[in-house]
Amino acid sequence: MTDHPFDQAMTLSVVGEPSEGRFEGLPSAYYWNMVGPYGGITAATVVKALMQHPQRLGEPIALTVNYAAALTLKPFTLTARPARTNRSTQHWTMEMTQLDDQGQPCVVLTATAVTAARRSTWRQIDHPMPQVPPPDQVEVALRAKGVAWLDRYEMRAIDGGLPAVWDGSGEHSRSLLWMRDTPARALDFLSLTSFADLFIPRVWVRRATRVPVGTVSMTVYFHAGPAELLAAGTDHLLGQAQAQAFHDGFFDQHGQIWSRDGHLLVTTHQIVYYKE
Amino acid sequence: MTDHPFDQAMTLSVVGEPSEGRFEGLPSAYYWNMVGPYGGITAATVVKALMQHPQRLGEPIALTVNYAAALTLKPFTLTARPARTNRSTQHWTMEMTQLDDQGQPCVVLTATAVTAARRSTWRQIDHPMPQVPPPDQVEVALRAKGVAWLDRYEMRAIDGGLPAVWDGSGEHSRSLLWMRDTPARALDFLSLTSFADLFIPRVWVRRATRVPVGTVSMTVYFHAGPAELLAAGTDHLLGQAQAQAFHDGFFDQHGQIWSRDGHLLVTTHQIVYYKE
Repeated sequence: MTDHPFDQAMTLSVVGEPSEGRFEGLPSAYYWNMVGPYGGITAATVVKALMQHPQRLGEPIALTVNYAAALTLKPFTLTARPARTNRSTQHWTMEMTQLDDQGQPCVVLTATAVTAARRSTWRQIDHPMPQVPPPDQVEVALRAKGVAWLDRYEMRAIDGGLPAVWDGSGEHSRSLLWMRDTPARALDFLSLTSFADLFIPRVWVRRATRVPVGTVSMTVYFHAGPAELLAAGTDHLLGQAQAQAFHDGFFDQHGQIWSRDGHLLVTTHQIVYYKE
Repeated sequence: MTDHPFDQAMTLSVVGEPSEGRFEGLPSAYYWNMVGPYGGITAATVVKALMQHPQRLGEPIALTVNYAAALTLKPFTLTARPARTNRSTQHWTMEMTQLDDQGQPCVVLTATAVTAARRSTWRQIDHPMPQVPPPDQVEVALRAKGVAWLDRYEMRAIDGGLPAVWDGSGEHSRSLLWMRDTPARALDFLSLTSFADLFIPRVWVRRATRVPVGTVSMTVYFHAGPAELLAAGTDHLLGQAQAQAFHDGFFDQHGQIWSRDGHLLVTTHQIVYYKE
């Protein structure tokens, strides 16, 4: 635990017996978005609960978080249950609730995860990192004013950044950017999870039109262990994201995050609600 | 309900009050794989429970199934719970159990899903269907003998089919194939879900080496409504799948399924255990 805003945002208190997997926390104002906290930080909180659970086996392999409602700036309860533990893999079910105005617990997030004790095997990266200029040759993106979480990340867009003009002139949905915590912070499974949600909405890039959006479900696959996290350290990561289909209110996004030395750390997908 | 093997495999009985979302079923021997049923058919069963649930709102948008253990040829219990219902979206949590040798219920699958009442919006397909020869100009793939589920599908591989020789000579992990139910069956959300798991293991294609594999988690995003399903009918669908990373026991797969007229019906992802 450090005084980095990210670590503060990851603070969870154990409620009851640790083996019950019941935690309490408070969404971090440091990572506030327009309505509710930045989704990446909420997803990272789910992984934090896993990492803190006394029955956890191995490291994160897969995570799916479903954003059921915007969190409010009030305490939440997060439960993590190992639904099945095999010899080398473990299946998790998670749920986050907040009290509504009547004091009733309401589900704001559901999630599942798989953790596993990895074994060394044949390795191959079949999606190599694109050739791009190094971070110091790419300008830091301008930030929207008054959106707290944007101050927590350094983003240097090589392609598909926030449109300079909203004139409906978009031609493709790909974004490619260098990303890093502000201030810099050594990479772990928590921050890697949060980086997976860092891309601006594909529909904004594709249409150069700002329509209301909200991520409904995000999946993160981890292709890294402690050695790859350590090697990535506090350096920039390269992220790429692209949409494949926009259909009647929902579009998909698939993305990749590489360490600067070209290891594909994460592949990620989400489906996002959009209006109009 | 027809006498098509797929519809027989989808048979679920309601246990207790319909609103409890508790179902019983039996894995179908028609779709048996080497150990347990074909994963696609199990995923489709989860969607069947959703579609049959009296509280369901709208159509499937996203589904994540986590395969916790191989199902045995014994009855299963499947529960589907609407964790949160909003005005136009609904979040589902599902769990499938089977009794173990001691008669205790054991979790064999966990899942989450999102359904939604879609509204007509701006549409765009940003991953167009590759140019390929029509199905009747592509040979039907040879089937492994004695694997029941392979007899339930017609597969015509254009690229990345089952390696002719297992000599470690693989060069890429992409498969491209025409797919159809045998016998032909009109497309619905259930069969679309099952098609999403139809690809042979990426690691076999990539390495031309047969190593033990098992899908751990699969996510399906639907980009189709009733009109697109109706238009696809009983015709062939084009499927494409590719891996991005093979790392210490787990590789990813991302895939697309188009109707013959080029609509991207589904984008799908999975993470798969592999040995060696």
